[in-house]
Parts: sequence; structure tokens; C-alpha cells
Amino acid sequence: MGKVQAPSGTRDFLADDLRRRRTAIANVSEVFERYGFDPLETPAFERIEVIAGKYGEEASKLLFKILRRGAHESSGQPDLALRYDHTVPLARVIGTHGSKLPSPFKRYAIGPVWRADRPQEGRFREFTQCDVDTVGSTSPLADAEIVRAIADGLGALGVARFRFLVNSRQALRGLLEVYQVAEGRGDGVLATLDKLDKIGVQAVAKELVDERGLDVSTAEHLTEDVAADDPDLLRVKLSATERGQQGLAEIDSLLELAADLGGRVVFAPRMVRGLDYYTGAIWEVEAEGYPGAIAAGGRYDGLVASLGGPDAPACGGSIGIERILAMQDAWESEPHGLDVALTVLGGEADLMRLAGVLRSNGARVGMFLGASRKLGKQLQWANAQHARFTVLYGPEEQDAGEVTVRDMESGEQTRTPLGNAASHLRELIDR
Amino acid sequence: MGKVQAPSGTRDFLADDLRRRRTAIANVSEVFERYGFDPLETPAFERIEVIAGKYGEEASKLLFKILRRGAHESSGQPDLALRYDHTVPLARVIGTHGSKLPSPFKRYAIGPVWRADRPQEGRFREFTQCDVDTVGSTSPLADAEIVRAIADGLGALGVARFRFLVNSRQALRGLLEVYQVAEGRGDGVLATLDKLDKIGVQAVAKELVDERGLDVSTAEHLTEDVAADDPDLLRVKLSATERGQQGLAEIDSLLELAADLGGRVVFAPRMVRGLDYYTGAIWEVEAEGYPGAIAAGGRYDGLVASLGGPDAPACGGSIGIERILAMQDAWESEPHGLDVALTVLGGEADLMRLAGVLRSNGARVGMFLGASRKLGKQLQWANAQHARFTVLYGPEEQDAGEVTVRDMESGEQTRTPLGNAASHLRELIDR
Repeated sequence: MGKVQAPSGTRDFLADDLRRRRTAIANVSEVFERYGFDPLETPAFERIEVIAGKYGEEASKLLFKILRRGAHESSGQPDLALRYDHTVPLARVIGTHGSKLPSPFKRYAIGPVWRADRPQEGRFREFTQCDVDTVGSTSPLADAEIVRAIADGLGALGVARFRFLVNSRQALRGLLEVYQVAEGRGDGVLATLDKLDKIGVQAVAKELVDERGLDVSTAEHLTEDVAADDPDLLRVKLSATERGQQGLAEIDSLLELAADLGGRVVFAPRMVRGLDYYTGAIWEVEAEGYPGAIAAGGRYDGLVASLGGPDAPACGGSIGIERILAMQDAWESEPHGLDVALTVLGGEADLMRLAGVLRSNGARVGMFLGASRKLGKQLQWANAQHARFTVLYGPEEQDAGEVTVRDMESGEQTRTPLGNAASHLRELIDR
Repeated sequence: MGKVQAPSGTRDFLADDLRRRRTAIANVSEVFERYGFDPLETPAFERIEVIAGKYGEEASKLLFKILRRGAHESSGQPDLALRYDHTVPLARVIGTHGSKLPSPFKRYAIGPVWRADRPQEGRFREFTQCDVDTVGSTSPLADAEIVRAIADGLGALGVARFRFLVNSRQALRGLLEVYQVAEGRGDGVLATLDKLDKIGVQAVAKELVDERGLDVSTAEHLTEDVAADDPDLLRVKLSATERGQQGLAEIDSLLELAADLGGRVVFAPRMVRGLDYYTGAIWEVEAEGYPGAIAAGGRYDGLVASLGGPDAPACGGSIGIERILAMQDAWESEPHGLDVALTVLGGEADLMRLAGVLRSNGARVGMFLGASRKLGKQLQWANAQHARFTVLYGPEEQDAGEVTVRDMESGEQTRTPLGNAASHLRELIDR
């Protein structure tokens, strides 16, 4: 039978990778816990009616849908779908558990989601999302807590140099008011402005005319204003409308509540998030050495309701943890070796008992499980296991009631009574 | 919109439950690590050809199958299925990664599997399996390591009184030889004998005659021998055949290598595991206060190959962790409270900075995120958060550049300069 692979776009995590991922995730979780966020874990799949139609048509094609079972399997119809993100399940949980949840509900979720994207370098069909959200508070403190939790989370992931680019959906809407862009065109215009980094000033201005219905002069001036990325310019313009002032206040409140983060949080008028659902302060994180944004978020007061939950204000953020982990994969990883390797040349019951004592003291202990009785071969195995110490217990040692302990780095060997071997090894390990 | 639930047979894990589960799983993982087992995580789904046909017809109906996507969705055909256990993915991983893996390959896997069983009390469609296996060793030490790792794992899960009931597939086959049961009937006869606890001696003997083709006298004597659960009787009978002797040797080797576990591992002739794939020593764990077996395993040298992997000897075991966790759910759980709750009556930036310093020192800190400016309401919130200390920073404190720290248990209040608040609180927390 041929070599069968994991499904396209998925990965097997073997020990080294998995340990690194687990450590990273534990570190981020610990940060979120410090902020009083609680963990939440939802099922891998949801009823299809909870998920379908929530993400738009394009995304809908990327759902992994689960066939009905038993007599209904032949219908070819799905009734469940693997979760596509952690946000729709969050909205569902709030609907399901309602009053059992604290208010505001501060939760984090770190776990796999599934999207049938075309697999490519660095993009997977099963990947981990790392979300933190507060539902049920309109306080700017809630927004600031998210930003600070994400900043600390990035620090815990070893990302050293990063900046939060902050803007506000209200500020952007205010700017559109200054240019008398019709309310109904706002979302489309912002979606186009979001492409500045991708397609450049001229193409954006052209798209604003061709597809969003702005006149040429408005399109050009608006694009220039955003592209200039000049906070002072925007402050002047935005002060002209109430909405603009409101947006500035959102931005300034976030800047003030993060003032002690040492200039890591800045007003960036050019940062436009194209997603319709944002309603207040929005932000993205750029980091040295990483292309694109490695974290993003904002306030989305209408989203929970639109996803089937109750009408509740909310804000949140997400760390692109897969990209950060991929960077870490390039680091050399410390092999996770054995503290003690036991070679086996007879005396199995004695060795098993010794292993038991060592393990109950917390040591990582392996025994040679192969068929060979050649010491050389067994020492090779101990080496491959990155063992710090190896125990030899050949016929001569057995007769003497002793073991030989070999320091695998120095090659130094010492003899010690079998009954004393566990505490002797414990001392060596702790040294 | 109505209250939408999680899909039938699945659960949302809210904070308290989830923390308990995580702690339990971390404890078991730590035990397995001490034995030199490495963690392995495979995708949630496998290609359907990897899974289909591996579990027999009944189980096949319980697979969650994933519809093909895009243009193929309308075919109504699946191409993937959620994993049904961790064993088939293990066999696939060995086929996929082969020489990259250490030999023997000792791995543990703790994670969800999915089965579309009829949901009922204590049975779920998404549940966690906790497996530990060694592939590539025929050594009895490998079997003994599994048994001891499972024993320590149960201890780490708080299961205090348990016993390993040990038998051997070879011993059972040897007993069938003593009764001259035809080789081809062996698996079926053992599957029937496995029902002793469920349907009793007479029904088993009857089924052996009616369905397995034994004559009445053989059926009755064989059933009695097994039901008697008398090691001495079996030792005498088994010594008559080579296979029986081999089986006894497997059992005795396991007993010897676990002799220091204080009588927790015993030969139990009545313990027959009906599954065809076992080839050597087999065992089940019974525990006081738990119905049925809470762990089981054995040697299954042909299984990896039959599941699509290479021809490799293997042994392993599995803890029924969901049942143990369900028992723990009944325990009162310690609320995971805040170390410090910050009430908010103005001075937001000062408070946010204070929270930042406390959190960077590892404290769990929450801020009041509601709209109310009433202290009474905010103290209620702090109480609901199980806060140990609450910080008050009203207009008077702000003018004085001080904070009031309230010990929520004693009600005692102290004033301290704002600049000193973080270290003062740290001292109080550590006290």
C-alpha cells in the first residue's frame, strides 16, 4: 500500500513542533488569564444553520460540511459544518447560555478552525486561531484591555518589535461625511480604501470612481488624505463633523489608556479595515520581520446579534498565531531528551522498579525496548534519545547488586548500589 | 430567534469545567512524558479511504463524513471523515513519516474523537480519548511500561483504588486448544466469552452452542473454566499446551514487572477482551466507584498493518478519561477568581497603568467595564468575580494621589500612595 498522507492542507504535529506550539499557546493563555479572560471551548462543528450565511458567499464555499448520517446519508445533504472561526461559536454560546455567563463576558479561545482554502505555502485548512473578546461592555476600558492583552500576548510569543496602528470606524465615516459621500456608499468606499497598500493610490482613486460612484475630485482628495497617513491633518478635518469628533475621541481614549506602552500604539489614518462589521476603534499590529498584520481587532457592536446572538456590544482581537509559530519553527529546537536511559542486559524487574522510583520523582526515564542484548547498540539508542545519564546493569553488576551510571556528556562512569541508584541519579539530575 | 444549542451530543466547555479538564489532561500528559512517550497530534479528519472499512460495519455508520467541496459538493459524496479514534491516525502517521520517527515509536495522544452514537447520559459524539502506545517493540518491558504509565495516569487523575485484570490472548487460545476448539472458531468463541459479565454463564454456554458451533459439554466446561476466574485452575490447564504456556509466560512477565505496584496487577482468567486484534497480554482496569472498565489495553501486533501502516508489533492502552472527568465534575470546583478588582470612578489611565504593572507581575486583574459609576454596584461585581482585593480610586483618592485597597474577605481597608499600590498589592497577594 502506498504512503498515505494527512489530508491536503493539514499537518501531523510530531513531538518537537507540538511541544513548541503547546508552550506558545500556554504562554498566551496565561497572559489572557491575567486580564481576567476565561477560556471557552466549543465543539468542532456547529449546526449548519448556525454557520451558513454568516460569512458571505465566498467564505461559504470554504466550509467543511458534514453529511447527515444513517438513513439520511444518501440524501447527500449536510446538517453540520466544522467551525470556520471562533466568533460565530461565541455568538451562539451567548445565545445558548445567556444568563449563566458573567456580564460582561470576557473569553479567550485558542484552537483549530477549518477552511477549505486552496492549500499553499504557509496557509492551512486546519489552523489555530487565537481570539480574545469582551461581550457586553461599551467602555473604552474594554477596548484598551484587548489591545494591552494582545500586546502582552505578542510579547509572550517572543515578538519583540511591534506597533498597533489605530484608527476608528467613526473617524473614517466622519471623513466620508466631510467629503459628502452618501451614507449608503460608505462600506464600499472603505473596502476600496483598505486596498491602498495592495494596489496603490492611483488604482484606489480609480476604483472609487469606477466602482464606488465618487466623482474624480472627491476620490482623489479622499484617497490622498488617507494615504498621507498624517494624524495632524486628519485631526483638523475630522473636527468639522460630530462623527469625526466621536471617532477622534475613540482613538484618543485608546492612545491615552495605552500611553505607558512606550509609543507602541499610534493613530494611523491610513489603516482602514475593510470589514463592514467594525463600529468603533479598530487596529492592526505590524511587526518587524513579519509581512502584513500579525494581529488585528476592534469594536464590533452589531456583530454578535448579526451572527445569531443577542444584541450586545463587543470588542475583540485576534493574534495570527500560525504565522508567528511558523517563524519559531525556524529556530533550533532543544531536543526533549531522557533524564535517564536504562539499558537492559537482564534484571528487568529490578530495572522496572528503578524506573518507577525515578519517574515518581519526576524524572523522564526510558528503557531499551529492542531485542538486541549488545551494549554498544543500546548505548547508541541512549544517545539518540539525548539521555543525560545511562544506567548499565550487566551480569557483573547484577551479581554485585550495583549499577553503573554513565554521564553521557563526559563519559564518566560511577558504580553505586542498586538500592541507592534512584537517589544517586536524582542528585546527578538536579546538579 | 430561538435559543440555538450546540449540536446534539456535543458540549460547550465553560471556564470552570474547562480548567478542570485542562488540569487533568496536563497531569496525565506529564505522567506519559515521564515514561518517555512523546506527544502526537494529527488532523481532526483523515481521507475517507484511510478510515472507512477499518472499524467494521457498525462503527462505519458512526463516522462523521465530510462532503466534497466546490464543484463536487453537489455529488453528495464525502472525501474526508472526522477521526473515530487515535489508533487509525497513529497507523497512518507511521506509514507517512516512517523513518523520521524514532524506533520504537512511543507516543501519547489526548484529544477529541467523533462518533455519531445515539447521544445519551454520559455518552457524547465529541469526546476525548487518552491513548498511549508503543509501536515497534516486542519486548514485555514495553507492555509493562504501558501498564505502569496507565496506573500512574489514573493516580494523576485522582483515581485511588483500582486493579489491573490481566489475561493473555495466547492463554485464552491455549485454553481453546485444550478443549479442541477449531482454530477458525476462536475469535467468535472469545467474543461470546467476553459477554460473561453481561449475560451470565448459562446464556454464554448456550450462545457457544447455538452460534459458535461447540458441543454442549465443551461449551459448558469452557464457560465454567473462564467464569471460575481461578488462576491456579487455569495454570494447570494451560500448562498442557505450548500456546497456553506461552500465554502464561506473557501474564507472568507482566505480573513480575509490576510486582512493586502492591497487588494492583492480577491474573484474571475471566477477563476476556472480545476484540479480534489483540495478540498477547491484555488487561482492563476496574476501579472502586466506577462501573465497568475505566482503562483497557494490550498487545496487538497485527493491528498497525491491518490499519494501513507497516507491519509493526505494538502495544498500548487507553484511559476512559471522560468518565473520570464526569466524576470530577461532581466535585465542588474552586472558583478561579481575580487577585485584584479595580473599580472605576474616574482616573482610568492611572488604573490601566496600575493594572498593567500588576499583570506583568503575574496577578490576575480585572477592571469594572460596566457603565455604572455607583461604588455599591461595582463592589457587587468585584464580589461576583471572587476578587481577593478591590481597589477604590474615587475623586478624593485621586486628589490625594492615593488608592484604597479593600480586603474582600475581612473588609479591612488601607490607603496607600498610587505609586506604591502595585508593590503593596503584590505583597498582600503573596502573603
